[in-house]
Amino acid sequence: MITLEKIRQRAEADARTYGYYLNPDVDFLQSLLEGLKKNEERYGYPSCPCRLASGIFEFDRDIICPCDYRDLDVAEYGACYCGLYVRKDVFKGKTPLQPIPERRPLEKQLRAYAASSKTEIHKAEQSAAAPPKDEAKQPEMVKKLWYCKQCGYVVFREDPPYVCPICKAKREMFAEIKIQLSLVG
Amino acid sequence: MITLEKIRQRAEADARTYGYYLNPDVDFLQSLLEGLKKNEERYGYPSCPCRLASGIFEFDRDIICPCDYRDLDVAEYGACYCGLYVRKDVFKGKTPLQPIPERRPLEKQLRAYAASSKTEIHKAEQSAAAPPKDEAKQPEMVKKLWYCKQCGYVVFREDPPYVCPICKAKREMFAEIKIQLSLVG
Amino acid sequence: MITLEKIRQRAEADARTYGYYLNPDVDFLQSLLEGLKKNEERYGYPSCPCRLASGIFEFDRDIICPCDYRDLDVAEYGACYCGLYVRKDVFKGKTPLQPIPERRPLEKQLRAYAASSKTEIHKAEQSAAAPPKDEAKQPEMVKKLWYCKQCGYVVFREDPPYVCPICKAKREMFAEIKIQLSLVG
Repeated sequence: MITLEKIRQRAEADARTYGYYLNPDVDFLQSLLEGLKKNEERYGYPSCPCRLASGIFEFDRDIICPCDYRDLDVAEYGACYCGLYVRKDVFKGKTPLQPIPERRPLEKQLRAYAASSKTEIHKAEQSAAAPPKDEAKQPEMVKKLWYCKQCGYVVFREDPPYVCPICKAKREMFAEIKIQLSLVG
Repeated sequence: MITLEKIRQRAEADARTYGYYLNPDVDFLQSLLEGLKKNEERYGYPSCPCRLASGIFEFDRDIICPCDYRDLDVAEYGACYCGLYVRKDVFKGKTPLQPIPERRPLEKQLRAYAASSKTEIHKAEQSAAAPPKDEAKQPEMVKKLWYCKQCGYVVFREDPPYVCPICKAKREMFAEIKIQLSLVG
Repeated sequence: MITLEKIRQRAEADARTYGYYLNPDVDFLQSLLEGLKKNEERYGYPSCPCRLASGIFEFDRDIICPCDYRDLDVAEYGACYCGLYVRKDVFKGKTPLQPIPERRPLEKQLRAYAASSKTEIHKAEQSAAAPPKDEAKQPEMVKKLWYCKQCGYVVFREDPPYVCPICKAKREMFAEIKIQLSLVG
């Protein structure tokens, strides 16, 4: 079972690793953690408490907490989009928290909403017609092996991360690993 | 040569990266570091100073410091099983250190002990009969490429980690990367 | 466009993740960040401000900031070769900064210089003879998939890192991942 304590422990461990802090406003922090718990219970993964998830894992992947945009936002604005993770100067009240623009690409937002509404229609049709045979088929994204040309870090994703978590190289430093196979006759 | 200083430097670097602290009890810390040094000298790897190693790398892998269980234990109890790595609140004396249950699966414990005793018998037989030809054959574990479905982190291991070191997703978020090869005739 | 602010943000994010600090000498730090910016503009990557880069990515890869040698140097001497990243005790002035010997292998230094001068000659010949058709061909290094035998961390590099960024295992813990393919007739 998912407890609020486990949700908090995960967020704290994540903050410790990246040298971030959780939001110093105790009530606000509590509401964010409760949002994460609700999403984990509803979808099976803790998607961002301040964004609308589609409920389809592959389309929500980039907004599962910590979202793909967090590290860029904390570096640039001192906090992630939600305000869950903040930089030390913001935590200490030395830098005021400013509004953070949504960095999630519009096409990912649209893709998620489009898929989400189709799933809703699909589910509605199924429940009206016959008992559902299996789960609505989850879309499969084409994943690739990417590596950071600077430090060699390897990920298996649809697209490379915005920042290398190991050496902080920018996204442009990632390239695809291709497997070559030659049969010589 | 392995010096106590190198052992300490490695532990400190590891603590810094994850935002942990080394045990504040100077004498206790010293004894743990000496235990790590002894194991590194004896086995060639710094296995956990508070667990019995088999001396067979593949069977001890999960208890090489930092062990596979550390991050879960620090998150839940504020310290790893040994007490080498502690959370800031424990370091500052704000949270008392509590006993930490052994999280290592029983089957891994048994596997290591069984293999260890067989090796001992094997070694004894060899030294009684003839001069040993080569090292007791090390067991080969079947390793797989796993990836974290949330952030894409890739590992090559027998089984996935309990927590993704990059995004802190739980073990269930890991899936196997399979290589498909199609020859069409 | 590359701003000094972006260069600073990247360095700060990197320091936070590894629990390092940026050099406390504000003017010295500023000059290092400006050096990184200059290199990023000149070469397309932020190579070490205190080492001579060849301008050829594959030959400079190990000295792109954070360089391959940083973590060993911070652990052993309290600072990286440049003094950009320092340990907390150095940041707080508790430990004096000492001179740090160059850890970059001589063969990598020589390889870069040799290639660099050849490129210069090549460029000079080209510009004297005819308009250059394409960029001087970049050398291709043979990269391999390596994994840390201790934690399973995977990298795609010419050679393994000196320290595993995930578990801090030493370089000797890295081994190559080989793909076996069997066709049975």
